[in-house]
Amino acid sequence: MLKIVVDAMGGDNAPSEIVKGAVLALKERKDFAVVLTGDENLIRAELEKLRYDASRVEIVHCSEVITNDDVPTSAVRSKRDSSLVVGLKLLKEREDVGGFVSAGSTGAVLTGGIMFVGRIKGVLRPALCPGIPNVRGTRTLLCDCGANAECKPAYLAQFGVMASAYAKAAFGVENPRVGLLTNGAEEHKGDSLHQEAHQLLKQTKGVNFVGNIEGRDIMYGDVDVAVSDGFSGNVALKSIEGCGKTVSAVLNREFRASLGSKLSYLCAKKQIGKLKYMLDYARFGGSVFLGLKKAVIKSHGSSKAKSITPSVIQAVDAYRGNLIGNISEALAGTAIEGTIDE
Amino acid sequence: MLKIVVDAMGGDNAPSEIVKGAVLALKERKDFAVVLTGDENLIRAELEKLRYDASRVEIVHCSEVITNDDVPTSAVRSKRDSSLVVGLKLLKEREDVGGFVSAGSTGAVLTGGIMFVGRIKGVLRPALCPGIPNVRGTRTLLCDCGANAECKPAYLAQFGVMASAYAKAAFGVENPRVGLLTNGAEEHKGDSLHQEAHQLLKQTKGVNFVGNIEGRDIMYGDVDVAVSDGFSGNVALKSIEGCGKTVSAVLNREFRASLGSKLSYLCAKKQIGKLKYMLDYARFGGSVFLGLKKAVIKSHGSSKAKSITPSVIQAVDAYRGNLIGNISEALAGTAIEGTIDE
Repeated sequence: MLKIVVDAMGGDNAPSEIVKGAVLALKERKDFAVVLTGDENLIRAELEKLRYDASRVEIVHCSEVITNDDVPTSAVRSKRDSSLVVGLKLLKEREDVGGFVSAGSTGAVLTGGIMFVGRIKGVLRPALCPGIPNVRGTRTLLCDCGANAECKPAYLAQFGVMASAYAKAAFGVENPRVGLLTNGAEEHKGDSLHQEAHQLLKQTKGVNFVGNIEGRDIMYGDVDVAVSDGFSGNVALKSIEGCGKTVSAVLNREFRASLGSKLSYLCAKKQIGKLKYMLDYARFGGSVFLGLKKAVIKSHGSSKAKSITPSVIQAVDAYRGNLIGNISEALAGTAIEGTIDE
Repeated sequence: MLKIVVDAMGGDNAPSEIVKGAVLALKERKDFAVVLTGDENLIRAELEKLRYDASRVEIVHCSEVITNDDVPTSAVRSKRDSSLVVGLKLLKEREDVGGFVSAGSTGAVLTGGIMFVGRIKGVLRPALCPGIPNVRGTRTLLCDCGANAECKPAYLAQFGVMASAYAKAAFGVENPRVGLLTNGAEEHKGDSLHQEAHQLLKQTKGVNFVGNIEGRDIMYGDVDVAVSDGFSGNVALKSIEGCGKTVSAVLNREFRASLGSKLSYLCAKKQIGKLKYMLDYARFGGSVFLGLKKAVIKSHGSSKAKSITPSVIQAVDAYRGNLIGNISEALAGTAIEGTIDE
């Protein structure tokens, strides 16, 4: 049976929300099991509060935890018995393990992912790829959104290839439309990096490149994939997150201001609920770290059970959709020049 | 009497909404007059529909218009009798003219501004600086948001100086908090440009630098100024714009879905109205092009009267607050190394 490793100790709400989220995922899909890495006593204490099928839950005890205060590069080397490192090694080594989910330190997931799981042949730089909710009710994949602050044109072209393969494999998008996130729609827009990436994407086989897009197009959903350098992709992701949270905060403030406004809320609850649902990116799970030999999913550090569950499902879907095979094949079909320059 | 030049022919809704917005601004403040540049017949036809004090409106006829189809750099050179070029020249040449507002081609405003109005002594690169609504109900200044796609660390340090001066001069912010927009809050985050800019901003006299900020912090309003390279600043601005418009679109869709939901809307109209007001950046006017010898304000291309009016008021406030003098003085007090390398 397929197994997904879940780092039970990673994130602000570990282990309780992580364990809960993993168990809830088991209820949504019947065709997999979870392996929880972390402090066995703590994990068992959480499991005892829940109802679950014990035959589908395995615990691998680890004595250490990597926190956000650790320096990622040294922590993944020194904390060999941490839930994160042990989890990534299980992913690498065990054939029955198809994916890994962590809400822990982003830096440690990225460094550890490359170090222990390794890159698919030909991948210049793995990239973080979350789904952003759009007005159509689907998701726009944003790749890269933070793994690579400094990029070269060839990296961006590969992000387009990998995210297209992901859109096909995990969400069944037929011929994903790919846009390049820049500061204007015209072809000549952007700095030299993006101007060169534009020309490369145009020529990249298998990428349905529709041209430059602007920040606002991410949520308009006219493209399936927004290709971005990791720096401005991260800025876009967090700007959208901040706007969504600001909207929620203003609504909460206004609807709680008085008895009258509380009654107004009851009246409009359904519509407000739909808006909040649309803005809730947690329902899509985490960011896939595209380009590794197996599916690594980084869930938000503040993840609660309701966002761990879709992250685990995401890992299952990535495996079932043959994400890795699709990326390998797509990359083999392109001829993007570049060297693996660590 | 102080005069503000308004490019009556610039933008998607010119000249009707532009003329209307300018006339409405005259009603809000009594201490200035407007000079409208553009086709005199068309402008007069619009003015005839409105009630206004004729002694405070001057028209300067021009026979040409720069459109978004024109190449900005050549258009400002070849279309010398365009409403935009004539307006900028009036700003430069006439002592009684204190500011300029256009909703026309951004590229033409930027190129024309530098060419005809000129930079303040010591300014490496002028920068576009809009106000983004934040959850506190005030505005976060985002500088640069598109004038400079490629930046050097010294430019970013100057953006911090200029936007701080603007926050003081136009909005009375005492000791503006300045953050650097990057892909993470930690000091080492970002590419080499932002790492160097971080160190420079720390040392820049007169800048109250609070460190790196992320995209979400723009709308949280914990800083008064977000310093950014023009590329990622533009991505942030438009990502926020897209999110805001998506929220409005979802609300409109949900509240118009049925008779029942229309009744819900009536119930919650006040609260929804407050949310829409918070998100409405048009109420802040346009983006000031900081670093020029006089105040140039770029209003959104789709501006209607209700966003032209605050843009004109913004120009008046910038003049009254001695924006230019403040920027000159602040820059003279810093020692940012760099050359004017056009």
